[in-house]
Amino acid sequence: MTTTTVNRVFNFSAGPAVLPLPVLDQMQRELVALPGVGMSVLEISHRSGTFESMLAEAEADIRALAEVPSNYRIVFLQGGASTQFSMVPMNLLDPGATADYVDTGSWSEKAIKEARKIGNVNVAASTKQAGPVAYVRVPAVSELSLTPGAAYVHMTSNNTIEGTQFQSAPDVGDAPLISDSSSDIFSRPIDVSRHALIYAGAQKNLGPAGVTLVIVREDLLERSRAKKATLPSMLNYAIHADNKSLYNTPPSFAVYGVGLVAKWLRVQGGLAAVGQANEQKAARLYAEIDRSGFYRGTAEKSSRSFMNVTFRLPTEELEKLFVKESTTAGLDGLKGHRSVGGMRASIYNAFPADGIDVLVTFMQDFERRHA
Amino acid sequence: MTTTTVNRVFNFSAGPAVLPLPVLDQMQRELVALPGVGMSVLEISHRSGTFESMLAEAEADIRALAEVPSNYRIVFLQGGASTQFSMVPMNLLDPGATADYVDTGSWSEKAIKEARKIGNVNVAASTKQAGPVAYVRVPAVSELSLTPGAAYVHMTSNNTIEGTQFQSAPDVGDAPLISDSSSDIFSRPIDVSRHALIYAGAQKNLGPAGVTLVIVREDLLERSRAKKATLPSMLNYAIHADNKSLYNTPPSFAVYGVGLVAKWLRVQGGLAAVGQANEQKAARLYAEIDRSGFYRGTAEKSSRSFMNVTFRLPTEELEKLFVKESTTAGLDGLKGHRSVGGMRASIYNAFPADGIDVLVTFMQDFERRHA
Repeated sequence: MTTTTVNRVFNFSAGPAVLPLPVLDQMQRELVALPGVGMSVLEISHRSGTFESMLAEAEADIRALAEVPSNYRIVFLQGGASTQFSMVPMNLLDPGATADYVDTGSWSEKAIKEARKIGNVNVAASTKQAGPVAYVRVPAVSELSLTPGAAYVHMTSNNTIEGTQFQSAPDVGDAPLISDSSSDIFSRPIDVSRHALIYAGAQKNLGPAGVTLVIVREDLLERSRAKKATLPSMLNYAIHADNKSLYNTPPSFAVYGVGLVAKWLRVQGGLAAVGQANEQKAARLYAEIDRSGFYRGTAEKSSRSFMNVTFRLPTEELEKLFVKESTTAGLDGLKGHRSVGGMRASIYNAFPADGIDVLVTFMQDFERRHA
Repeated sequence: MTTTTVNRVFNFSAGPAVLPLPVLDQMQRELVALPGVGMSVLEISHRSGTFESMLAEAEADIRALAEVPSNYRIVFLQGGASTQFSMVPMNLLDPGATADYVDTGSWSEKAIKEARKIGNVNVAASTKQAGPVAYVRVPAVSELSLTPGAAYVHMTSNNTIEGTQFQSAPDVGDAPLISDSSSDIFSRPIDVSRHALIYAGAQKNLGPAGVTLVIVREDLLERSRAKKATLPSMLNYAIHADNKSLYNTPPSFAVYGVGLVAKWLRVQGGLAAVGQANEQKAARLYAEIDRSGFYRGTAEKSSRSFMNVTFRLPTEELEKLFVKESTTAGLDGLKGHRSVGGMRASIYNAFPADGIDVLVTFMQDFERRHA
C-alpha cells in the first residue's frame, strides 16, 4: 500500500490539527489488524497485554521525551482541557483556600469561570485591555499579585486564539504551578520540575482529539485521595493515576495515536530539535509579516507565540479575499478566531516547514497583487 | 487496496469489541485523506463544514435507526458510562429528592456508589445474592419498591459481567427512566419514548472507545439549565445539547466511527433485522451450552443476555484449558470476568454469525476430548 501519492493540503487548523504523515501511514497500515494480533487497535480489550504494552510504551516515550522526573505521574484522561478547568479546582482547591489564576486570553477566562464555581479565585494578573483585540501579551513575573499560601497558580502557557505565549514558566515561588499547555506542549524543551501539574488536550501537538495528557507531581495526589468519598471517581486524579489510566475504558485509539506521535518526536531528535525547527518555522513567518507593513502581527513581539501566528491585513475586505484565495491554493484553516479577526496560522509540531515556504510565497504574491 | 485477506481472529472481547469489517475497511481507505478534503478525519477542525456534516449525519442515522422522537436530543460526550454515573445525579437529582436505582450487577453497584456522593438514593430492587455468583437475574417489575415522586429510576439494561439482560424496559409509571445501555444499545428495537435518558459508551455495540452516546428527553434539560451557574460546564447536559455536541473539541474520530457503524446497522436492515440476527446468534450458543450438561450457563434462563453469554465448565482446570486452547484456535477474549469466573462470549452487533459456528464446533470438540 502506498499512501504518499494522496493529495493532501497544508492544514493550518488550530486543532484538531495536522498529524505527522508517517504516523498517519502507520495508522492506516495497521487499522484493520495490528501486526501479529489479528484485531484492529479499535477492537482490542483495554485489559489485554497488547493494549497495556501500548500504554506503557506511550508513557515511557513521553517520560523520555520531556525528561519527566520520577516523582511525577503520567495520566491519560478524557474531556479535553475544558474538563481540566473543573478537575483542577475540584481536586486541588479546598474550602477556605485561594487559587491564583493568570488571565492571558479566552481560555484562561474559561478556566477562571469554572474555578469560581468550585472555590475562591484570585486573578493574579490580567493582560486584558480595551480595544479591538482584548489580549496582545502575557504578563511579566513582576506583574503577578500572588496570594501567600495559594492552593496553586494556574496559567495558560500558549494562548491559541490570541497568538501569545510565555517564553518560559514564570517563577511563582513555592506555590504549585499548574499549566494548561494544550497548544504548546512538547513544542520545545520543558522543565517539568518547575510545574506541579501540566495538562493538554492532545489534538494540537500530541495526537488525535479525545485524550488529555496530565503530568502531575505525586504529592498533589494526596489532595485527591482525601476526596475519594465525595468527589466523582472519574474526576479524581488519584483514582486514574493509581489505576494507571485504566480505571475505566480509555480512549484507546487516541492513546495509540499519542504514542505514535511521541515516538515520532523522539525520531525527530527530541524536544531540543523539535523546538529549533518550530522556532525557525515561526521566525520565517514573522519575518514576512514584519517585512513591508502590508501585514501586521496582532501580538506584542516579546509575547509572540511560536505555535499560533496571528496577523491582520490592511482591510477586512482583503482579509476575506486572503482566506478565500489561500484556501483555493491548498492552504487550509488560515481564518483567525472571530475575537481577534484577521488570520491565524497554527504551525504545531507536525506542521511541515515546506508549508511555511508555500504560505510565505502566497503572502508575497498576494501583497504584490493587492498592496 | 484490498484488506479482506488480512488475518483476523474472532474477537469475543467485552469491550472495546469487534467492529464491522466494512467499517474498518472504510476507515483504512480514508485514514490519510478524506475523499475531496485532503486531510485525515483525525486532522480536520471540529468547526469545519466537513465535520459538522459528519456529526449531523451520525445524528440523523441514529435518529432514523432507533426512531428517536423529536422531543429527544442526541448528544456525543466523553468519559464513558463511568462519567454518566456522576453526570446523571449531578444534573437530575436535586437536594431533598430521591433517585431510585435497580441493582442488577457490578455496573449498577458502581452507578449507585457514585450517585450516593451526590444525593439520596433508594435501591428499588437488588438481585444480589449470596453464593459464588452474586447476580444471576434481573428483577420482575413487581419486585421494584419505587419512591413516589422519585427524581428518576436508574437501570442497567444489560449486565456485561453477569450475562443478564432486561427483555424490555420495566414500567416505572411517571418517573423518568434512565438506562445505562452501554452493552446492548441498538442490539434490537428500542422504544425510546419509554425512557427519559439513555446512555451508552460506544465501545461495545456502537463504535470505537472514547465517545458516549446520550439520548435525552428535552424536559430533563431544564434541570440542567437551572444549574448552569454551579455545575461544571463539561458535566452539564444542557450545555452540550444546546451546543450540538460542539461545546468543546469532540472526540472526532470516535464520532466518525459511530456514524459509520450507524450507517452499517441501517444497511443490515435496521434494528429489527439486527435484533433477529443477534437472537439467532445467542440462541445457537445457548442451545450448545444446554445440550449435554458439560457446559452450564450462569444466568437464569429468563434473564439471559443476548450480548454476553456466560458459562462454566465442570472444573476450573478445564476452564483454564478452554481459555488456552480457544485462544490458540483463533477465538480471542473468552475468559470470563473474575467475579463470575468461567467463560464469557461477548457477541455484539458486529460479531459475525460464522464466529458462533466456529465456537460451537470448538466447544463440541473440547467436550469430546475432555468430558
